[in-house]
Amino acid sequence: MEENRIPPVSRRRVLAGGALTVTGALAGAGITAAVERGSGSQDGSGGDAGRRPRTVTVAYGEETVPFHGRHQAGIATPAQSHAVFLGFELAKGTDRAALGRMMRLLTDDAARLTRGEPALADTEPELAALPARLTVTFGFGPGLFRAAGVDDQRPASLEPLPRFGIDRLQDRWSGGDLLIQICADDPLTVAHAQRMLIKDARSFARLRWTQRGFRRGRGIEDDGVTQRNLMGQLDGTANPYPDDDVFSEIVWTDAGPRWLRDGGTTLVLRRIRIELETWDAVDTGAKEFTIGRRLGTGAPLTGTAEKDLPDFGAENDLGFPVISEHAHIRRAHVGEDRRRIFRRPYNYDDAVAADGRSETGLLFASFQRDIGEQFLPIQRSLAESDLLNEWTTPIGSAVFAVPPGCAAGGWIGETLLG
Amino acid sequence: MEENRIPPVSRRRVLAGGALTVTGALAGAGITAAVERGSGSQDGSGGDAGRRPRTVTVAYGEETVPFHGRHQAGIATPAQSHAVFLGFELAKGTDRAALGRMMRLLTDDAARLTRGEPALADTEPELAALPARLTVTFGFGPGLFRAAGVDDQRPASLEPLPRFGIDRLQDRWSGGDLLIQICADDPLTVAHAQRMLIKDARSFARLRWTQRGFRRGRGIEDDGVTQRNLMGQLDGTANPYPDDDVFSEIVWTDAGPRWLRDGGTTLVLRRIRIELETWDAVDTGAKEFTIGRRLGTGAPLTGTAEKDLPDFGAENDLGFPVISEHAHIRRAHVGEDRRRIFRRPYNYDDAVAADGRSETGLLFASFQRDIGEQFLPIQRSLAESDLLNEWTTPIGSAVFAVPPGCAAGGWIGETLLG
Ligand code: HEM
Ligand code: HEM
Repeated sequence: MEENRIPPVSRRRVLAGGALTVTGALAGAGITAAVERGSGSQDGSGGDAGRRPRTVTVAYGEETVPFHGRHQAGIATPAQSHAVFLGFELAKGTDRAALGRMMRLLTDDAARLTRGEPALADTEPELAALPARLTVTFGFGPGLFRAAGVDDQRPASLEPLPRFGIDRLQDRWSGGDLLIQICADDPLTVAHAQRMLIKDARSFARLRWTQRGFRRGRGIEDDGVTQRNLMGQLDGTANPYPDDDVFSEIVWTDAGPRWLRDGGTTLVLRRIRIELETWDAVDTGAKEFTIGRRLGTGAPLTGTAEKDLPDFGAENDLGFPVISEHAHIRRAHVGEDRRRIFRRPYNYDDAVAADGRSETGLLFASFQRDIGEQFLPIQRSLAESDLLNEWTTPIGSAVFAVPPGCAAGGWIGETLLG
Repeated sequence: MEENRIPPVSRRRVLAGGALTVTGALAGAGITAAVERGSGSQDGSGGDAGRRPRTVTVAYGEETVPFHGRHQAGIATPAQSHAVFLGFELAKGTDRAALGRMMRLLTDDAARLTRGEPALADTEPELAALPARLTVTFGFGPGLFRAAGVDDQRPASLEPLPRFGIDRLQDRWSGGDLLIQICADDPLTVAHAQRMLIKDARSFARLRWTQRGFRRGRGIEDDGVTQRNLMGQLDGTANPYPDDDVFSEIVWTDAGPRWLRDGGTTLVLRRIRIELETWDAVDTGAKEFTIGRRLGTGAPLTGTAEKDLPDFGAENDLGFPVISEHAHIRRAHVGEDRRRIFRRPYNYDDAVAADGRSETGLLFASFQRDIGEQFLPIQRSLAESDLLNEWTTPIGSAVFAVPPGCAAGGWIGETLLG
């Protein structure tokens, strides 16, 4: 079976009109790019030839992430720039057979769209042409197991999270029987895939919530650097990444129900509001104390570079720990690899309320073998005494089992519903 | 005075670790890029070296568009990927002197942020570092002239548009005394600039509406190609572009109040809902008939290539016009250059309603010398009989005078308020 991976870009267009085709080193690396030296000024006043930017043209739009594979794409895939999480509630009477029909249909849509082809019933086929690393990832909430009559196949810890003291959960951002996570480097691609998938899910399920998120645009920063979130922090430093040896044992489920074991995982999605208004009032020192890392470099307070390991034993002159007992990275830290989680979060920043306050936060998405063994202990520790809680409030919560991937001709969920 | 333009990218980072620095042709063009041949597979299973994408790293994030110039940036600037339009209502008592203070403050913020520097009172200075072609463009609505006691300086046709039969205007998307248009190739950059500017405007004005929009991500398609909108159409084909000789005489105001004449323009912003559900039910032939152009190529129905000029006189075998009398491009077409408009629209696609229907449409933004002489006749013609009206509904409307740019040390609006 083919593994999920990003193949080399298929084709680079060469610009017409004054374009200078780059050969040499780039061609040697298997890539053709075009460098355009534009003419004319930006303001339309003319006569400004040569002051235009020189642009390296990279057709990110044509990049694809294979849909088929042992695991679903959109988990180990380096996070794309744009995401939408769709939470559905199954219609009454959507039983195991109906779920099978639905998942065959949605799998077919996803396989086509991620290749840059229109869905079978695509009404705007032109919008399918630039997949921009589109991935579509499906998850099954607790209710789906009941509806399908296979509750005995539900991973033991796949149930609504216990209510934490810090939670202010809203129904409209919580729960859901079916999740579709759609990610791509282009917002138009996400919008189109979203419409096609919602259309085909509609006869089986009602959309319960839609959560849009974003990270840096593709190419804004170098691929692979740690990005900042809306609080200004480097977010993701201590994350296990797909290249790390430990990634597999953290993410892919290896115990519990058989159907999930061969390449599946679980997803916790928490919508966490950030109180930027009050966070803004805090000075840099206090912000860094809260997390246990520097704002500028992301280095732990006990180090100088982002990737330095935090020294949780270090004390200052007064004998206090340099990284507070209540700092976010200490409370969230687990020593044992198998207890860690893989975070794949997106920022959200929705329309501003009339008083000028923004609806801002983090779509905290974490993948792990087992929610009970990995996510829950960390979340409990944070709920207990994380300094960050002063400025963050969970307002939505949902959990999903994420089935293994499938081969061409197969469908997502067949090991459970087939 | 320096003209608005995009300077060559300042710096290209060379990736560490297996990076292959491209010299040769690229260096000859004044650019250094880095090509990374990653190792490791996407799914974390390891042992897959060499199957990773080869990435041309382009640091779009560091590109800047100069703030100072004869014209404000964000008009002739090639449309960035992300935009937010903010409409403010002035607080009672915000008079000419207060407006001057506000515009000095906002100008200073905009000049700094667009350079990639924090605003003076920036609370997340780290988020200012990647401007990603950030532009901040200010506009003055009719009410601002009254508040400043300079209503005699208001361009004669700068007033709320007459109500058209097709309109279903909602108050929450209409009007506004002050507009801030923020555009950048990165959504995080837009979110940060938006917060800083809202903060500084807050003591003078109340936010009335926020409208977010997007186009293709930077680098998804080649720069300069015509993009598709959410109806799937190539949108922008017949637009005058900044490189065109006629751009200046279409966009920059050359009559009316003196203060606006030296580099100013006007903006009409219409929030136009698209009824995608019913549009989807229409077949391709009818969709093409509606616009007068082919969906695939964007060519006029009388031609074969996108840039072919439409032949409005052509008839079919039955003696009917090939491009219908009611087709969008015929109704919107004006022969005389000085009567044309410059469209700089963004797509919007907000959270989906519970019934699965999307809140989808176009933030139609057009710049022109004079609203009465250019925008209004076109809008009247469309309101009368455009076939497209069946699937589009204006739900918001606002008009603004867009002051000239300013030199370093100056401020936007000083020719009116100074
Ligand atoms: C708005 C909410 C949150 C923000 C802004 C946030 C931010 C951060 C930041 C800046 C770091 C340090 C850099 C890094 O390693 O990524 C971090 C680390 C971490 N966070 Fe969070 N976080 C949030 C919520 C959560 C939640 C809900 C969990 C899990 C329940 C979590 C788990 C972790 C873990 C496991 C680490 C790594 C700790 C270590 O160093 O081993 N975070 N977070
Ligand atoms: C949702 C609403 C709209 C959509 C989807 C839309 C779409 C299009 C498309 C596909 C074209 C053909 C390609 C091109 O030249 O760009 C076009 C042309 C044009 N549109 Fe629209 N449009 C909309 C609303 C408007 C409005 C409100 C106006 C002005 C009041 C307008 C003015 C024009 C003009 C001037 C042209 C060029 C006509 C020519 O060929 O000379 N459009 N539009």
